[in-house]
This record gives sequence, C-alpha cells and structure tokens, in this order.
Amino acid sequence: MKIFTQIGSLSCPDKLGIVADVAGFLKQEGGFILESNQFGDVTTGNFFMRTEFIPQAGAPPFDSLKERFKPIADYFQMQWELHRLTEKPRVMIMVSCLGHCLNALLNKAQMNNLQMEIPCIVSNHPDLKTMANGYQTPFHHLPLSSETKEQQEEQVLALVEEHRIDLIVLARYMQILSPSFVEKMKGKIINIHHSFLPSFKGAKPYHQAHNLGVKLIGATAHYVSEILDEGPIIEQEVTRVDHTASPEELVTIGQDIETIVLARAVKWHIERRVFLNGAKTVVFR
Amino acid sequence: MKIFTQIGSLSCPDKLGIVADVAGFLKQEGGFILESNQFGDVTTGNFFMRTEFIPQAGAPPFDSLKERFKPIADYFQMQWELHRLTEKPRVMIMVSCLGHCLNALLNKAQMNNLQMEIPCIVSNHPDLKTMANGYQTPFHHLPLSSETKEQQEEQVLALVEEHRIDLIVLARYMQILSPSFVEKMKGKIINIHHSFLPSFKGAKPYHQAHNLGVKLIGATAHYVSEILDEGPIIEQEVTRVDHTASPEELVTIGQDIETIVLARAVKWHIERRVFLNGAKTVVFR
Amino acid sequence: MKIFTQIGSLSCPDKLGIVADVAGFLKQEGGFILESNQFGDVTTGNFFMRTEFIPQAGAPPFDSLKERFKPIADYFQMQWELHRLTEKPRVMIMVSCLGHCLNALLNKAQMNNLQMEIPCIVSNHPDLKTMANGYQTPFHHLPLSSETKEQQEEQVLALVEEHRIDLIVLARYMQILSPSFVEKMKGKIINIHHSFLPSFKGAKPYHQAHNLGVKLIGATAHYVSEILDEGPIIEQEVTRVDHTASPEELVTIGQDIETIVLARAVKWHIERRVFLNGAKTVVFR
Amino acid sequence: MKIFTQIGSLSCPDKLGIVADVAGFLKQEGGFILESNQFGDVTTGNFFMRTEFIPQAGAPPFDSLKERFKPIADYFQMQWELHRLTEKPRVMIMVSCLGHCLNALLNKAQMNNLQMEIPCIVSNHPDLKTMANGYQTPFHHLPLSSETKEQQEEQVLALVEEHRIDLIVLARYMQILSPSFVEKMKGKIINIHHSFLPSFKGAKPYHQAHNLGVKLIGATAHYVSEILDEGPIIEQEVTRVDHTASPEELVTIGQDIETIVLARAVKWHIERRVFLNGAKTVVFR
Repeated sequence: MKIFTQIGSLSCPDKLGIVADVAGFLKQEGGFILESNQFGDVTTGNFFMRTEFIPQAGAPPFDSLKERFKPIADYFQMQWELHRLTEKPRVMIMVSCLGHCLNALLNKAQMNNLQMEIPCIVSNHPDLKTMANGYQTPFHHLPLSSETKEQQEEQVLALVEEHRIDLIVLARYMQILSPSFVEKMKGKIINIHHSFLPSFKGAKPYHQAHNLGVKLIGATAHYVSEILDEGPIIEQEVTRVDHTASPEELVTIGQDIETIVLARAVKWHIERRVFLNGAKTVVFR
Repeated sequence: MKIFTQIGSLSCPDKLGIVADVAGFLKQEGGFILESNQFGDVTTGNFFMRTEFIPQAGAPPFDSLKERFKPIADYFQMQWELHRLTEKPRVMIMVSCLGHCLNALLNKAQMNNLQMEIPCIVSNHPDLKTMANGYQTPFHHLPLSSETKEQQEEQVLALVEEHRIDLIVLARYMQILSPSFVEKMKGKIINIHHSFLPSFKGAKPYHQAHNLGVKLIGATAHYVSEILDEGPIIEQEVTRVDHTASPEELVTIGQDIETIVLARAVKWHIERRVFLNGAKTVVFR
Repeated sequence: MKIFTQIGSLSCPDKLGIVADVAGFLKQEGGFILESNQFGDVTTGNFFMRTEFIPQAGAPPFDSLKERFKPIADYFQMQWELHRLTEKPRVMIMVSCLGHCLNALLNKAQMNNLQMEIPCIVSNHPDLKTMANGYQTPFHHLPLSSETKEQQEEQVLALVEEHRIDLIVLARYMQILSPSFVEKMKGKIINIHHSFLPSFKGAKPYHQAHNLGVKLIGATAHYVSEILDEGPIIEQEVTRVDHTASPEELVTIGQDIETIVLARAVKWHIERRVFLNGAKTVVFR
Repeated sequence: MKIFTQIGSLSCPDKLGIVADVAGFLKQEGGFILESNQFGDVTTGNFFMRTEFIPQAGAPPFDSLKERFKPIADYFQMQWELHRLTEKPRVMIMVSCLGHCLNALLNKAQMNNLQMEIPCIVSNHPDLKTMANGYQTPFHHLPLSSETKEQQEEQVLALVEEHRIDLIVLARYMQILSPSFVEKMKGKIINIHHSFLPSFKGAKPYHQAHNLGVKLIGATAHYVSEILDEGPIIEQEVTRVDHTASPEELVTIGQDIETIVLARAVKWHIERRVFLNGAKTVVFR
C-alpha cells in the first residue's frame, strides 16, 4: 500500500479555512489521508501542513493532481510540493576522517531504514574510501587547502549537478563551506555539530564541555546557514556524563549521540517532515 | 484569546472525507483552528481527531454549534464531544499515606498548570489531611476494611455524585477498586502504578525490580480496568538506577517518576488529548 | 544500622598511597566501609574521596576518631570533614513568587527523602507564606528594593547566623545576591537556573530557548559564584519540546525539570557527595 | 601512559579491611591508582572491587605482581584477575540476517572505541558476509537446521578454541543456544534482546509492545543463561514511541537502541567492569 503513497507539504500565511480546502480537495480527488499534521505559528503568522495520502481507485494521475491543486495553492499563496513516496531523494554525504556517522548512514540506507539514494561520498581525506567501497558507494577524494578551496567547492558542485543531488549531509565534514556554496544549496545542507547548541560553537566542543564541567553532552543537527553553527536546528539529543570523563572520552561517548541525531534529521528531511520557519524549523515527527 | 477556545474530540470508523467535512464545517461556522490532530489506526479501522479552535466574530453560540454539527457526527457514526476550554473538569483525588503525587497535583492545580477543580480528596488514612488543608481542599477520611469495602465505595460514589466528578485520580491509593465501581466509572479513573508495565504488576514492584537487577525503573499511568494493572496505558517514563540502590532507595528514586507520569496523564486527559482505542490509548500530545 | 553511619570526605593533591592510608586507618579503627568513592583529576592533580562507614563494636568514639585521623590528614595536606549521618544539615530556602521548587523540597524533607532541617524560608514576596504554613515552616517576608538591598541581605545573614544555617537554597529566588553576600557563603549557596547552562544565561531563558528553536530545554543547579549563572555546575537535566510549545508552555514544562534538578543537587550536597574542583564539581552519586 | 595500565578485579565475601589490604598492597608495590570502585552487597554479603593502576618506576614485573598478591587473595577467598590494558580480549560475533549491531561493533572496534580483537564472525546465513569483508574480518557461514544444530555448535566451539575466544557476542543471532553450549561458555556470552526485559520475552517483542500500547520501547543486553531471555542483565535503554508507530516502525526505531545497549555492554565487559552477582550484575561504569 505504501508504494502508492503521496506526500503533500505546504506553508503559507495562516488564514481561516486552509485545512478545510486542502482536505476537501483530497476528498474530492479520492485521496485517503494516512497521516496529516498542521501547525499555525502565532508569533510569525505562518501555517505549515504535511499530509500523507493514498489515491483511491479512480483517482486522477499524479501530474493531473498537481495541476488541479494549483488554484488552491495560489489562493492561499502557498509554497508547496507533492511527492510520490517512491521517489527517493538523492543524497551526497561529505566526510573528513571520522567514520561513525557515515557508517551508520550507509547501513541505514542499505537496510532501507533511510529511504534515499547515495550516488556519491565526498571527502577531503582518503581515510574512509574502504568503508565506502564496503557499501559499493562511489567515493571522491577531493583534497583541500586554503588556496584550493574555491576550486574544490566547484568540483563538489559539479558532482551535485551531475548526480542531481537533493541534499548534502555533512557527516563530520570538518570544513567550513563558503557563503556562496551555502547560498546555492540553501535549506539543502544538513550538518551535525558535536555540541548541544547554542553552547560550544566552533572548534573542540567536547573540550569546551569538559572545561565547564557540564553534566550532559549533546549533538545538534541543523541546516547550514552563512553563520557558523547557527542555522535552523532540526534535532538535538544529549547523554549523561560525569567528572570522570576526560575530553577524549567525551569525544567517544558523544559519537553515538551524533550518529543518532544526524540519522534522525536526515530521515525527517527526506520524509519531508521538516519545514523552515524563519531561523527555526517545524518538524512533524 | 485562550478563553474562547473550544475543543472538539471525536472517534469513528475511518472513512474517506472525515477531515474534509469536519474542517469544512469549522470553516463555514467561523472556527479558526489553533491545533488539530488526527490518527487512523489501520489495525482497528478506527479514526480519532481532536481540534482546538477559536470562534471568529459572528460565529454561532456554543450550543447552536453543537446542534449544527450533529448531522456530520451522525453520518460518520462519531462518538464526539465539544467543550469550552473554560469548563474545568472536576477531579477527585484518592490517596493512602504517601503524599508525593498528591502534593504535586495540588501545587500544579494551584499554579494553573493543571486546569482542573479538585472538589475533594478521599483517603483511607488520615495522614494527608494536613497537606489537603494546606491547599484549602476538603479531605474525606473514609477508612476501609475487607468487611466495609462495599460501604466505603458507596460513600465514594456518593461524593462523586454530589460533586459531579468527571475524573478520579488514584494518586498512590493502595486499594483495589471493586469491578462494579470500576464499571460505573469506566474510562474515568486514572491510576499510577510504580513500575514500567507490563513488568512488575501487583505489590512491591520496586522490590521485584531490585531482585531482577534491572538498570532502569519506571512508572505507568493507565486507566483502571477490571484486571489489576492492565488498563489502557496513558503514559510511562523511566529513570536510571544501578546495583548500589537498595529497594528502599528505588522507592524514593521512583517517586519523582511517578509524580511526573501521573501529572502528565492527568493533564492530557483533562485537555481531552487521550482517546480509548480498544485496550490501548491514542494520545495527541 | 544507618543511624551509626559516618561519612568522611576529603580532597588533597593526588599522591601514591592515599586510599591505602585512609582505608588502612579505617580498618585499624574498626570502621566497616559501606560505600567508598575516589577520583583523581589528572588535569588538576587533585584527589577526592568520600567514604561511608559503620563503626564496629569497640570502635573509638566519634571525637576520638577525628583526633586520630589528623596525622594522616596533615601528611597528605587534606581538606577534610567527618560527619555522623544523624547530623542533619540546616537549610534556608529562599524564594520569590513561584512555588514549584519550594513545594517539592518541603514535601521531600517531610517524607525524609531529603535528610535536612529547614529552620526558615525567606522571600521578597508574601505569596508563598500559605505554602510554608502548610508545612509548619517559619516564613520570613523580607521585601527588597534597589535601595534596601544591602539592609535586606543583612537581615538574611542575621537569620543565617541565628539558625546556624549550613546551606542556602535559591529555589527560584529571582534576585541577584551581592558579591559580599556570596563571598560570605561561598560553596554554601545552591541556585537553580532555568536553562541548560551555558546556554541562555540571565533573564527569560525559556523565551531565549523559544526564539532559537532548540529541541530540548533544561535546568541547571549550581553553586552561586560572583559571576551570574556561572558557578560550578552540580546537576543538569533536559526534556524534549517541539515547535508547538509557546514560551509560556516552555515555562510550565520546564518547572518539572527545575524541581527534579534542584532536589537532586540539594540531596547530593547534604549527603556530602559534592566537591568543588576549581570551577567545576566532583559528584559521587 | 594508558599503555602500562593494569586492571585488577576481584569478588569475595565482604569483610572488614579488604580495601585497606588491596590498596596497601598496591601502595607497597608502587601501583598508582587511576580509578577504583568497590561495592558490598548487603543482601548477599558479596564484595566487588575493580582498580585501574599504573606501575610506577621500579614496580615489579607483571607476573611477579600476580604472585605476590596471592596471599591476600587467598586470605579473603577472592575470585580475582589481573590484566594489562594492552591485552585485548578476543571476541567472536554471531549474527543472522540483520546487520545494524554488527555494523556498529565493527566500526567501534576499528575506531578503537572498543578495545577488542574480532578474529571471526559466525552466521547461520550468508547475508552479512559483504559487511564482514568490508571490515576485513573472517566470516564463517555455518547454516543450521534442527537436525544439524548439535554439529553446528561443535563447529562454533571449534572456532572458539582455535581463536582462543574470550567472549561471544550474539548481535541479533536469532537462534537459541543449547544448554551444553551455554554451560561451556558461562558468563562469556552476551546477547541483545530487543525488549526492555522482563517485558516481552521470546519472539517478536516489538509486536508484543505494539499490542499492549506501551509508550517506551527498549532493549536489554544480558549474559546468556540456560533460561531464554533471563540471564543477568548488563544494560538497558529505552526510547519514546507513540500510537502512530506500526510494529514495523517499532522494529526500525528499536534498532538504534539495540545497537547502543549492546555496544555499551560489550565495552563494559571487555574493560572488566561487569561482575556476576548471583542472577544480577554489578557494573562499575
């Protein structure tokens, strides 16, 4: 049954009757709702909605459905998308040397727990080539120095184009992307930062956490914005530590949290559960 | 704005068009949706929906709204209710000797974190009378022996009638209610059991947990059914313990979890977020 | 058995043989160890130890034991204390208008889950007098303006002296204490801050959290130092929230976390499980 | 510094002076204590101790240290072991078709987060051979039917002998080991069960959880005993779910918990932090 499922997602200024008109449209077109979420943000006046539905027998074909929804979308000034669940997003994973996040993402994709294609992995180091090979995934070693940064990003963007990439996941890619790169892929780059933001931005967050003696350490998955470690937060999690943990042990303990948080954020993004809401996100889990 | 808010909740056999018709009705009647949740259970074929909305200027009065919704309700064979947020449910709390749950519930009601009236507290022991007095809440000491159980329950039911009680909360009331009492108040009694059910039903669950050496202990809030500790689960939570904790320490550690779990379940019930779904619940958090 | 228990706690520069000499001393004096924890901090070179033990039949009296331990303490340059578990610390609780933390502390003290005396409660507002009365605890309303701050703090210090206060707990006391007050009670004031520090210091942390869209909110119990919200952290906890929670709802949700975190910190302090280690703490849970 | 670290672990009937004599011995032999934990179980009268220490300059060689400790061990009737941290335990991993646990264990071993050798992987199915190859680890496909079970277990035991295996990890090996196999490897087999035991023993625990409508699902790592899913529990963890999750989604959500719980249990075992205490464990985390 899942194979026919379609997902509609939209955001627009909040107004009386949006749910009525969207649900009324689906009823009329024979769309049986499996799951539906909506949220009106009273502070910004924005409205968000996501609906999973199955076309009943006799329902119009996909493209026709899109066409017929247009008048409603226009009336409410919606930003909207309609997808078939079978269309798997195409995801590029970027890494440096540490493989815990990459390893989990590859395994989850293989087990179909993350419904995505991974056409390529990009790294500024060669270390994780063997892991990529183990999962039969193309690995591009694109090294990087301060002089060659611009060039390297062009190579990455060429791969993005070539492979029609929908999402870039920075799975502990320890490089700062240029503003122009970020601009080009706005809302399409997810990073994992190894702290509970807004605490401990920048380098060596576990060492910062150790110095302060916090009793929980965490990780944050967020969309990349032009300001380092400040993009809209998608997911966060923490785990308990105590005074006995050295900074090196915090690094190790934190890796499990990073792995889980990043995988959740990617899952929700590719299931179209995440909406940008100014500097924040709406996540229909 | 909250003071005008109305909450509609319904369940019925799942079918094409329920959301459309409910949302369409609200649009037509000038009801602006603040929050809406729905869930169709594919295993049982039941559908559940809860909507918070604000009547716009010119919307029909409350009673008229109810009348006008009837045809839709009838068509879909709905069990349904419509409430004003200002109608506070009337809650009887039953306790024995331990006051941690009662103490939290009284405080939360006083701080308006739980929007409910507490017309009376009932106990089979006198110990918590002082606490009830501290919160200016009437306390009925109704002692109980195996011979007087029937009589005592009649006294409780008389109080239920007198005070038009909507919900009974067993806040560590260490007595088993008779099947006829439970039957009369079906779906209107919430109990807190001091284990993570289905583990450790019955007496002394923390001692059972200690004997087995579990690494987390928990608590479960559930509706009371005719079978001990088996009613539909509303909420559960756990906390970490280790080998050093004696059974007595587990009792103490667990009290915080019991307090939180029970308060959450009561909150969700009185906000009409909990639906019975066979032997389980649907909770729109 | 617990009633004879004694607790020794010490810190000193780390060195070969500390555990050997302390444990050897206890063996010789007939002290049966119930629980013992030690920690050597390799970054600072400090060593910390806490031991609960029971004097066996024939063991020397308490004061004599202290006398006989002095040579070992002197040799290792220890800061140390020896307590009987029956000596309950005397705790002053300071509050403003919000009573959730006070309510829990009073209840836990009454149920003997927190082994402490509460000779008095101090507040700059009269609101919580009824709650204090309900628990038969003296309540001092000492109002405060920018002009009278110095005077008011002197009144508080007079109460500290009169009641031989060992610990001040700021249970949502929404005032900043003067540096001289803090200096006088160094390491003896525990505050609860309603955020997961170091994030969201200062005023309205839940509003700050809402603005940023974090996915978990938290609370931090810490010793008060001269810099606002920067003293050594004793305990932290978080809870999950999402985009639907308004700042006001975050305030309410957070209160449970504040209550638990503060109660744990107070418990560990009065059980002498917390040691200052520079700007951090060592907590033997 | 870590490379010289030695770990002593012991258990014996509790008695006055054990810590004193062990710590006194280490002091005399020049062993600088890095970390030390002890626990006396008042219900069973057993005492447990684990100490990490570094031999100072001039300390006796490892084998000589063992010899010199014997008199103390004999006096207190200790079961004891002394290890160098550099001796990596040799671990066999057994799997069936699901690779999430294996994938994490292999990655953690490769990143040196789990300090162990993995001389071989054994499976009754061929599916995970590619994953094993990706980590350059020998994979033995030993299929199994009810007729060939005895034979297959003999093959496994032959591998255990050949590779001098210290620990078998059942990483979702969906077979029940025979009592004689379990007896031979007592205390040396760790299993991950995909429920929060004692709830939902046996087959399809996530389906059982779904039927009951629990609000948290969990996983349990335990030593294998002759009774299915009843051996001493090493570690447990849970995660929140709600009414929307189908049994299949519970399976997927639970895999992250299984992975983490099993990895923690293996880590603590190989760091010699886990002690059997009757039907329970003592874990010095």
